[in-house]
Amino acid sequence: MRPPLKLAVAGLGVVGAETVRLIAEHAKLLQQRCGRPIEVTAVSARERNKDRGLDLGSIHWFDDPVAMAREADAEVICELIGGSDGIAKDACEAAIEVGRHVVTANKALIALHGVGLGRAAEAAGVTLAYEAAVAGGVPVVKALREGLAANCVTRLQGILNGTCNYILTNMRETGRDFAEILAEAQEYGYAEADPSFDIDGIDAAHKLAILTSLTFGCEIDFEAVHIEGIRHIDAQDIRFATELGYKIKLLGITENSECGVQQRVHPALVPLDAPIASVEGVFNGVVAEGNFVGTTMFEGRGAGDGPTASAVVADIVDIARGRQTPTYGVPVEALSPIKVRPMDERVGPYYVRVMVSDKPGVFADIAGALRDSQISIESAIQRGRAEGGVVPVVLTTHETKEAAMRRALELIAALDSVAEPPCMIRIENS
Amino acid sequence: MRPPLKLAVAGLGVVGAETVRLIAEHAKLLQQRCGRPIEVTAVSARERNKDRGLDLGSIHWFDDPVAMAREADAEVICELIGGSDGIAKDACEAAIEVGRHVVTANKALIALHGVGLGRAAEAAGVTLAYEAAVAGGVPVVKALREGLAANCVTRLQGILNGTCNYILTNMRETGRDFAEILAEAQEYGYAEADPSFDIDGIDAAHKLAILTSLTFGCEIDFEAVHIEGIRHIDAQDIRFATELGYKIKLLGITENSECGVQQRVHPALVPLDAPIASVEGVFNGVVAEGNFVGTTMFEGRGAGDGPTASAVVADIVDIARGRQTPTYGVPVEALSPIKVRPMDERVGPYYVRVMVSDKPGVFADIAGALRDSQISIESAIQRGRAEGGVVPVVLTTHETKEAAMRRALELIAALDSVAEPPCMIRIENS
Repeated sequence: MRPPLKLAVAGLGVVGAETVRLIAEHAKLLQQRCGRPIEVTAVSARERNKDRGLDLGSIHWFDDPVAMAREADAEVICELIGGSDGIAKDACEAAIEVGRHVVTANKALIALHGVGLGRAAEAAGVTLAYEAAVAGGVPVVKALREGLAANCVTRLQGILNGTCNYILTNMRETGRDFAEILAEAQEYGYAEADPSFDIDGIDAAHKLAILTSLTFGCEIDFEAVHIEGIRHIDAQDIRFATELGYKIKLLGITENSECGVQQRVHPALVPLDAPIASVEGVFNGVVAEGNFVGTTMFEGRGAGDGPTASAVVADIVDIARGRQTPTYGVPVEALSPIKVRPMDERVGPYYVRVMVSDKPGVFADIAGALRDSQISIESAIQRGRAEGGVVPVVLTTHETKEAAMRRALELIAALDSVAEPPCMIRIENS
Repeated sequence: MRPPLKLAVAGLGVVGAETVRLIAEHAKLLQQRCGRPIEVTAVSARERNKDRGLDLGSIHWFDDPVAMAREADAEVICELIGGSDGIAKDACEAAIEVGRHVVTANKALIALHGVGLGRAAEAAGVTLAYEAAVAGGVPVVKALREGLAANCVTRLQGILNGTCNYILTNMRETGRDFAEILAEAQEYGYAEADPSFDIDGIDAAHKLAILTSLTFGCEIDFEAVHIEGIRHIDAQDIRFATELGYKIKLLGITENSECGVQQRVHPALVPLDAPIASVEGVFNGVVAEGNFVGTTMFEGRGAGDGPTASAVVADIVDIARGRQTPTYGVPVEALSPIKVRPMDERVGPYYVRVMVSDKPGVFADIAGALRDSQISIESAIQRGRAEGGVVPVVLTTHETKEAAMRRALELIAALDSVAEPPCMIRIENS
C-alpha cells in the first residue's frame, strides 16, 4: 500500500463540507480505487465554530487559507472558497509556489487567471485540476481532454447554467412569466438572492471560456465571449417557439474556423429533436462534434454540493493514482493566442418578435426592412387581432449574417407602428 | 520531447485502417497532446495486398499477429482482429507476456476473458485498455472508472447496440414492421448479413458485463446476464407503447443491491421524458446513477470506424501520456466475485399484449389469471372489434415480481381464447 494522499481543504461552505463528508464516507472505496488512502489533514474556513455536521477533531485548523496552502502537511490543496481574485487566487498561487497540487471548483478563477495559474503549475511540476469548474458533476473536462483526445473538435455547445435552464424549462411547462419562475427558483434555492450572475449569462460564459481553451488548444479569453442573458425572454416567446417546433435554451457555443474562434452565450431556439433540447430543468449538457467520433453528449447535474464534490474528488483520485494530463489538453506554452471572430459574423437563422400597432401596412413595413437588409423570411405568424391595440408579429428568417440582422432590427425599431424594441433570438439548428 | 510511442496494429479491417489513418492525419495534434509522437511501426492482417487507401510503405508487415505481438518494435499492441478466442486472444496474451501494453476494441474478448487478461497485464505492469469495447466513441469506460470514481454507483442502464436502436427508432417513426426495417438496416450497413449477434442482444450483453465490473468492482460474469433480443417486438407494440406514453428500447441494465447483482438485456418501455428515451437511431447512451453526482448520461455513436478509432486512439494517448488506471477501476485482485440476483426477482411494472378471440368473457379470464398471481392491473386497452376474429388486449401492471408475472403468463397462454403466447415487455420507469 502506498502512503496516504494528504489533502488540505480551503473553504467549508456546502461544497467544501460535502467534499470532506464524501471522502470520509467512501474512505474504503477510494482507497481501493486509488491504491492508497485519501486523508484530509487540514481545513480552513471563515468561522471555526460553525456546525457543519462534520467531525473535524483530528484535522489541523487554519484561519488563513493562504498560510494553509503554504504550511499544511498536504500534497494537494483543494480550493473551494470561490471568487476570481483575493484569497482564492492567493491560496492557489501559494500552493503552487511550494510545489503542491491544486484542485479547484472555481470557474471565475480559471476563466480569468487559468492560463497564468496553469503556467505556474506546469513550471512547478504540479497539477492544476478544475473538473468541478465546468458542468458540475459531469466529467466533461476529462471527456474533452482525454476521452476525445483523438479528435479535432470544431464546435461545442452546452447548457452550462442550471438556474437558467430551470427557469426556461419551467416557463415552457407552465406557461408562466420569467419573473414568477425566477422568484420560485430563488425560494427553492435554485437561484441566488442576486441572480444576475446566472441569468445574465456570466456564469455560463466563464465555463464556456474554459471549454474553448480545452477544445481548441487556445488561451482562455473570457473577455472575448459575447454574452446575453435570459431576462428579455417573454412567456409568449416560449409559446411561439413551441409552435414553431423549438425550445428556448440558454446556450454557450464555441466554434473554430479559419476566420477565428467565436464564443457566445445567448438564448437560442433549438429543434425539439436536437440532443441538447432533451437537457431539462437544473441539468447541464455539453455536445461536442469531433471529426472522428461525430456527435457526443454529456449530461448531468451542473451544480449542487453532491455533484460538485463528486467532480472535486474525481480530480483528487486522478492525483492519488499518479495521473497527470497537460492542464488544457496541451501544455500552456503550446496554447495558441485566440483569434476572435466577431459576433457580427455569426451566420444563421433568426427568430424575431415585433410588437406592433394593429393597423394595415405594418407587416409590409417590417418585411421591407428585412428585404432592405437582404434577409429573407422563412415563416411568419401574425394573429390575435386587437383593433388599435398592440399585437405580436413573429418571423423566422433564413440564414443571414448577424450584422445584417442588427441593421434590420434598427430599421424595424424605428418604424412608427412598432411599440417596443424587437425581441431577437438566434436559431441554432446544429 | 520524449521519444515516440511505437505502436503495432493487429487487424486492418475498417477500424484498423481508420486507426492508422487517424494517427497519420492527426500526427501533429497527437504529438502536442501526448508530449511525444505516436508512430505505427508494425501492422498485421490477413491479406497483404488489399488496397486500404493507406501508405504502409515504411511499416513492418507481419503475416502472423501473434508473432508481431512478440517481436515488433513496439510498446503498444493494438488488437483490432475481433472474436473472443483464437488469434485475437493469443495476440493479446503474447503481448502482455513480453511486457507490452494492449489496446483492444474487442468486447467479446473482454467480456469472456477480461479478468484473466487484466490479471496478467497487472502482473506484467502493463495496461490493458478497452474504451472502444463499450459504446464505441463515447468515453464511458473513462467516465465510470475516473470521472465518477468518487461515487458509489448502484444502477446503470444503457442503449448499447446501435443496430437495435436504429431498428426500434425506425419502427416507431415509420410504423413499419421489424422485418422490413431490419432488411433496410442490412442494406445501409447498419446491420450484419447475419444480424443475430446484434438483434438477439448478445452484443449488448457483452458490453453490459464489462460495464457491470467497472461499475460495481466485481468480476466480469457474462454468463450471468439475462438476455432477450428484439425479434418479438411487433409494430403494434410500438404503437401501444406510444399511446401509453413510452418508447420501446433495447436496454442493458445492471443493478447492485444487498440481494446481489442483476444484469439483464431486454426490450423495455421507457417514459418519453426519461433521458435514455432521447437516445435515437444508431446512437448509444449510458445513464449512471451515482450517490453523490446523481443522474449522468453519456451519449454518442456506438459503432462505426471513426468513433471506434477515436476510442482506440484515446487509449493510446493515455498510454503515451504515461497515465495508468487499475483495469476495472480497482486492481483485478480486488474485484469481488459476483453474487447473482436471479431474473425471477426483478421487481417492476409490465406491459402485456395478448391476442385473443373476440368473444365475451375473455378479458375476465385474463384479469383472473393476473389476480390469481397477485398482480394488479394499472391500465388496459381493448379495442378494434373483429367479430369472431383475433384482437389484441393490452395491459400494464403495477409493480410485481418477475416470477409472479411468468406464472400469470403461463396461465394466460393456457386459456382457450388466447391465440398465441402473450408478448411481455418490462416497463423501466427509472
